[in-house]
Amino acid sequence: MQAAIVAIGSELTTGRVTDTNSTWIERRLLALGVPCSGVVVCPDELGVIQDAVRFECAHAGAVIVTGGLGPTDDDLTRQAIAALLGVPLELHSPSLERIEAMFRAFGRTMPEINRRQAEFPRGADVLDNDWGTAPGFAVNVGSSRVLSVPGVPREMRAMWERHVEPAIAKLAGVAPGAIAERTLLTCQIAESSLNERVGDLVPRGDPDVEVAYCVHDTIGTIELTFRVRNHGDPAAAKARVDALATAARERLGRKVCAEGAQSLAERTVALLLEKKRTLAIAESCTGGRVAAAFTAIPGVSASLLEGLVVYSNESKTRLAGVDPELIRAHGAVSVEVARALALGARAGAHADYGIGVTGIAGPGGGSPEKPVGLVHLALAAPTGAVEVATRRFPGDRARIQILATATAVDLLRLALEDDAGN
Amino acid sequence: MQAAIVAIGSELTTGRVTDTNSTWIERRLLALGVPCSGVVVCPDELGVIQDAVRFECAHAGAVIVTGGLGPTDDDLTRQAIAALLGVPLELHSPSLERIEAMFRAFGRTMPEINRRQAEFPRGADVLDNDWGTAPGFAVNVGSSRVLSVPGVPREMRAMWERHVEPAIAKLAGVAPGAIAERTLLTCQIAESSLNERVGDLVPRGDPDVEVAYCVHDTIGTIELTFRVRNHGDPAAAKARVDALATAARERLGRKVCAEGAQSLAERTVALLLEKKRTLAIAESCTGGRVAAAFTAIPGVSASLLEGLVVYSNESKTRLAGVDPELIRAHGAVSVEVARALALGARAGAHADYGIGVTGIAGPGGGSPEKPVGLVHLALAAPTGAVEVATRRFPGDRARIQILATATAVDLLRLALEDDAGN
Repeated sequence: MQAAIVAIGSELTTGRVTDTNSTWIERRLLALGVPCSGVVVCPDELGVIQDAVRFECAHAGAVIVTGGLGPTDDDLTRQAIAALLGVPLELHSPSLERIEAMFRAFGRTMPEINRRQAEFPRGADVLDNDWGTAPGFAVNVGSSRVLSVPGVPREMRAMWERHVEPAIAKLAGVAPGAIAERTLLTCQIAESSLNERVGDLVPRGDPDVEVAYCVHDTIGTIELTFRVRNHGDPAAAKARVDALATAARERLGRKVCAEGAQSLAERTVALLLEKKRTLAIAESCTGGRVAAAFTAIPGVSASLLEGLVVYSNESKTRLAGVDPELIRAHGAVSVEVARALALGARAGAHADYGIGVTGIAGPGGGSPEKPVGLVHLALAAPTGAVEVATRRFPGDRARIQILATATAVDLLRLALEDDAGN
Repeated sequence: MQAAIVAIGSELTTGRVTDTNSTWIERRLLALGVPCSGVVVCPDELGVIQDAVRFECAHAGAVIVTGGLGPTDDDLTRQAIAALLGVPLELHSPSLERIEAMFRAFGRTMPEINRRQAEFPRGADVLDNDWGTAPGFAVNVGSSRVLSVPGVPREMRAMWERHVEPAIAKLAGVAPGAIAERTLLTCQIAESSLNERVGDLVPRGDPDVEVAYCVHDTIGTIELTFRVRNHGDPAAAKARVDALATAARERLGRKVCAEGAQSLAERTVALLLEKKRTLAIAESCTGGRVAAAFTAIPGVSASLLEGLVVYSNESKTRLAGVDPELIRAHGAVSVEVARALALGARAGAHADYGIGVTGIAGPGGGSPEKPVGLVHLALAAPTGAVEVATRRFPGDRARIQILATATAVDLLRLALEDDAGN
């Protein structure tokens, strides 16, 4: 069985939003061992949506439809699929009650317009949604199963886990372990270097083994996934994928910063908590992103004491205790100031670790000696020793900030791995 | 006339690569006034490519096909379109000579495999490519014009400029200004409320006018776009879209935070710079995101003095001067502490404005009196007056942080709009 995707929303066909939902779903399908036969992206137009769903139902046994389930006039998925089936929309009372309760929980009355989110094509199975007001639904179109979920990525992913993946696995007759998979997360290495170092581990022309690289563009890490399909022998597939992961780890060494679904920040926070270490941050060019990377992780408050966004020179001195003479002599973007920021953050908060970041994120402010992209990153350790890394990151302001943030977090991860703990 | 896109390549249907080519093309089509009727993304499979091109030719007068023009066995676009037309592939000698010359220029002999890049469906018009070895081609399929170009983004864009855009403009008989468009950005309003307030401005069933809502999920704002198609009268379309935008602005009032392509943070930073005001931030549950929202914008260093991520209670006192008694009496998540954070940030940095944020981002830490999602946001103004907004945001930790950040930035935007300046 193959699966296909229909992504609905005029924001996806007018260049506003890139359809990253489908990329995510494709990866999950692959991990399930179900090939994706294609994606149709279509605008909020009744006829086009019908044609798209009909088209994909001709190619795939399961069709995942994302988007078009909101309460507004341009949310047409419910209507389009009802029209395709030639059935009316019918109110599903339990869903209506659920939506009303959601609004009540926030002290609001449900606007009348949201009522339509509880209407589904007659005969549909409703897929409940605990993460938003729009329930999904599933219907049969010919011999295909059509599963419709919201387009909001957060909701789509939660609905995938609860409803879609189990349904597709059942349809495809996929047993757990049909595909053995191992994912390594890497940091501070480029995709091309990664490919050069480990690409040859996977034999060319073997359809049962593959390696995939997934660049986390907004985080600054790259995911390396090995997949081995089994033919009735899950243990052999698992052994093979483990051997691949072990060989890749040997070649990549400490460029591997985490495994599985864990992010770099999650791994680093887990290490902080495990080693009972505290942290303070003083950052300039990353402007709060380093602190935000840590505070995105629940439970970090036991370790993260504070962050200083020392944008002005005056604040570098007053908040992080950087000697103004140091700034005068070496400039705010210098190894010396990075070091002083890390030490100052650590001392001010009485933390075990201090992170200091200073650099030129651009687009302005660069010079031949200190070009845009130059960033100094410092880590003050529990011993009081300071390590400084100097990088020249490529790309625009956002890219430089992202890569500098990942590097700062990764320096702490590396130090914590060698830390005996408190 | 509408245009559609077929994006070919198994890397696009296996989650390796997100199809950003189509986003780029959609924007260019929109600017040309030619609506995009949809995108089909399909794997390197002969039958699926044929079906996809046939499907889009049924919807659009022009179909742009990207990818599948390389020299390897899995590059099947030439074959698929020839099969669709029922014609053979024929060698195009000038293209072969051109490809051979390209290899010679790099001191290499053309591998035999590249010969197939000079083969096109009989009757095709060849689109020369100065940026890579793969020429494109154009054919008529029924009443549609199919334009096939390489998938490498750099080559695709160069081919678009030279060949595709002129061809589509001619087919569509497009004059500049064929579509008039106005975009309003909103904050602190839900999509459903937005639709309720302005949805009826656009007459149902009028194909020339549309309104689209685009939720910026990672920012916490919603974009509202009105589009009016003209039929040879650009001035009338512009007048009509302007009237729609004016009416929407009247109904939405200050929920409109920016216009056009400007983001909420860009607009707020522009106001800070225009009014010559400085800013300091003390944030707890948003953990650096408010500072990061501002520091993402180039030039903000003239206004943003510093940010404090006061995660521990001790740091709220030491860095932002919050009276420990206040925390003891009301708790760290309280109107009083939010107010003290805003005042403390402002006073410490001698800034004009101070932002203070404290709340419960979850998943833990909530209670019946102070549930997850409760956030107090305070803005200290140049006069020293403090305004506090209390919200209960829905969703998970990330969503609560995103919405709290947008609200904090928006409170400053609102105050700056009323600020006579320094």
